[in-house]
Amino acid sequence: VSKTRPPRITIRDVAREAGVSIATVSRVLQQHESVAAELRERVTAAVGALGFQPDAAAQMMRQTSSKTICCAVRNSSVAEFAAFAHAAERVLRNAGYIMYLSNTEAEPAQEIRLIQTLIGHRVDGLIMARADEESAEVEQHLRQFQGPVVYMDRSPSPRADAVVIDHRSAMRQAVSFLVMLGHRRIALLTGQPHMRPGRERIAGYEQACREAGIAVDPSLILTGTFEPDSAFRNASLLMSKSPRPTALISGGLSLLPGVLGALRAANIEMGRDVSVIAGCDTDLAQLASPPVTAIHWDVRAWGATAAELLLERIRNGDRDTGRQVNLPCELIVRSSCAAPNEAFAYR
Amino acid sequence: VSKTRPPRITIRDVAREAGVSIATVSRVLQQHESVAAELRERVTAAVGALGFQPDAAAQMMRQTSSKTICCAVRNSSVAEFAAFAHAAERVLRNAGYIMYLSNTEAEPAQEIRLIQTLIGHRVDGLIMARADEESAEVEQHLRQFQGPVVYMDRSPSPRADAVVIDHRSAMRQAVSFLVMLGHRRIALLTGQPHMRPGRERIAGYEQACREAGIAVDPSLILTGTFEPDSAFRNASLLMSKSPRPTALISGGLSLLPGVLGALRAANIEMGRDVSVIAGCDTDLAQLASPPVTAIHWDVRAWGATAAELLLERIRNGDRDTGRQVNLPCELIVRSSCAAPNEAFAYR
Repeated sequence: VSKTRPPRITIRDVAREAGVSIATVSRVLQQHESVAAELRERVTAAVGALGFQPDAAAQMMRQTSSKTICCAVRNSSVAEFAAFAHAAERVLRNAGYIMYLSNTEAEPAQEIRLIQTLIGHRVDGLIMARADEESAEVEQHLRQFQGPVVYMDRSPSPRADAVVIDHRSAMRQAVSFLVMLGHRRIALLTGQPHMRPGRERIAGYEQACREAGIAVDPSLILTGTFEPDSAFRNASLLMSKSPRPTALISGGLSLLPGVLGALRAANIEMGRDVSVIAGCDTDLAQLASPPVTAIHWDVRAWGATAAELLLERIRNGDRDTGRQVNLPCELIVRSSCAAPNEAFAYR
Repeated sequence: VSKTRPPRITIRDVAREAGVSIATVSRVLQQHESVAAELRERVTAAVGALGFQPDAAAQMMRQTSSKTICCAVRNSSVAEFAAFAHAAERVLRNAGYIMYLSNTEAEPAQEIRLIQTLIGHRVDGLIMARADEESAEVEQHLRQFQGPVVYMDRSPSPRADAVVIDHRSAMRQAVSFLVMLGHRRIALLTGQPHMRPGRERIAGYEQACREAGIAVDPSLILTGTFEPDSAFRNASLLMSKSPRPTALISGGLSLLPGVLGALRAANIEMGRDVSVIAGCDTDLAQLASPPVTAIHWDVRAWGATAAELLLERIRNGDRDTGRQVNLPCELIVRSSCAAPNEAFAYR
């Protein structure tokens, strides 16, 4: 402690200045209900007059934490988000918090309404997958939010806390595996490149192509929303090309049903006619016929880690540096991939 | 209005009795913060002495609604529960509420802790799938909960509000369809009979057997938890019987992955060797090979209806009669069912 620093103002000083008991000051700082308005005003005035340390006040205020956290995703019924929310809720519940679940429907306007609601409810922290990493308006509202924010697979800035998935290395593994089987025309279905999940997958795909000496063909990278319908349309489009790609990577959480539906509708047999890699490892990937080679990561660790990181931020408050946890992925090889079927591709 | 009824006590009477302004009574009833403890006590005493109508008080209290609802399920990552929660959250959000999501892990003790937390947070209402309909302890805690409760596919009492699924008629449809194909040894995997989902499915199954003149064989009804692991074990057990059942109904929300896993592990081909009906209509049911005949109901309507029923209860407060909405089911026929393969069954 520096010697030039003025003596620290304590709650005792505030009580003396306001002419009330220490207990009353404490009750006011904790926003306790049973304090008359007049006393509340005297205490507030004394806090202001003495310059009572905001940190100490904040610490006392923190005792009136609402003990609530919000988890906001675009669609909480997507299996991976549901598993994320379940794992996060368990960690938060065990720490004495209850968790709001909110669907943003991938709309920044919905996120803004939510943030306003959370401020009104004095929510302690927020775990979210932003609909648009670049929205300045959402960023501005988030700055007014009182608690820490942890992002799910987003990196709006290097100072943001996030638990992200290593899609880049996953895509490199997926493409390298297909190249090893002999594929050269490999299609990628994924999200828009202005958002982390699409951006990182495309970067990993392009990097692996370059490493294999394959010129990147932009017509083989189809981006859209992360909805099965979008995947159905894009997979159908790819399968109507001539020549067709010999392999297809379903680079998203909820794209596989659309991809498998499109193949079935066109009477194309996965594995025999075209190789398929799933972007995440669902029941469907495991139990489809043939079972689908898939990118696997620990979805429960994703949710649990995000909740733990948020709790740590709430406890320690240090927000000077962002902390990003990068979850590793592995490729689980199943029988949906084979050597390229060029005869089918040119038919 | 009856003439013998005493004159209605108003907020004006309470104010006069307590010797305070009407505004103060209103602030106390709305639990406003800026009222001194002493005034609060005088108002509370006057409310009690005059017998101020609880309804009116409740109505005023309602203005301090926390605008929060809780949805509590055993495991929010089960696809149907996730879709339910998503649909409910959308309805609640549009009505200005935010929704807590809580996992009870199918443990009554967890439910009790949750109810206590919800009381502390002044949560306005609760949508829940109770882990044990017969738990008197949970019932007792629920009576202390301030808001209405709507059950998800539970019917702990005829006075309870609930949105239930017509499993009984669904099972009758499923068994009748299999009987029509020639099956006589039809197995049912489902939950325990002391809970509505298992109980109703077993009742429908038995009724359809009787209608078809088939003696119910208790060894073909295997109950367990609604987890894929339980289904894997029970399906494996059934497939090791001699003779085997020729058809199998997967009577639960998350049993199909376990059933398909067990068939695959035993190298049994669905459709050819044994017929399978799925208890709900998932991506997996639709995209498995062959696609699985499934019981379908509108899962989004399930969640939306529960939320709407709860909002209606919050608005109107009338809890004298329970309202049960029974969601209809249909059987979607796909190629997982064929005539019984008796040769395989006796092999």
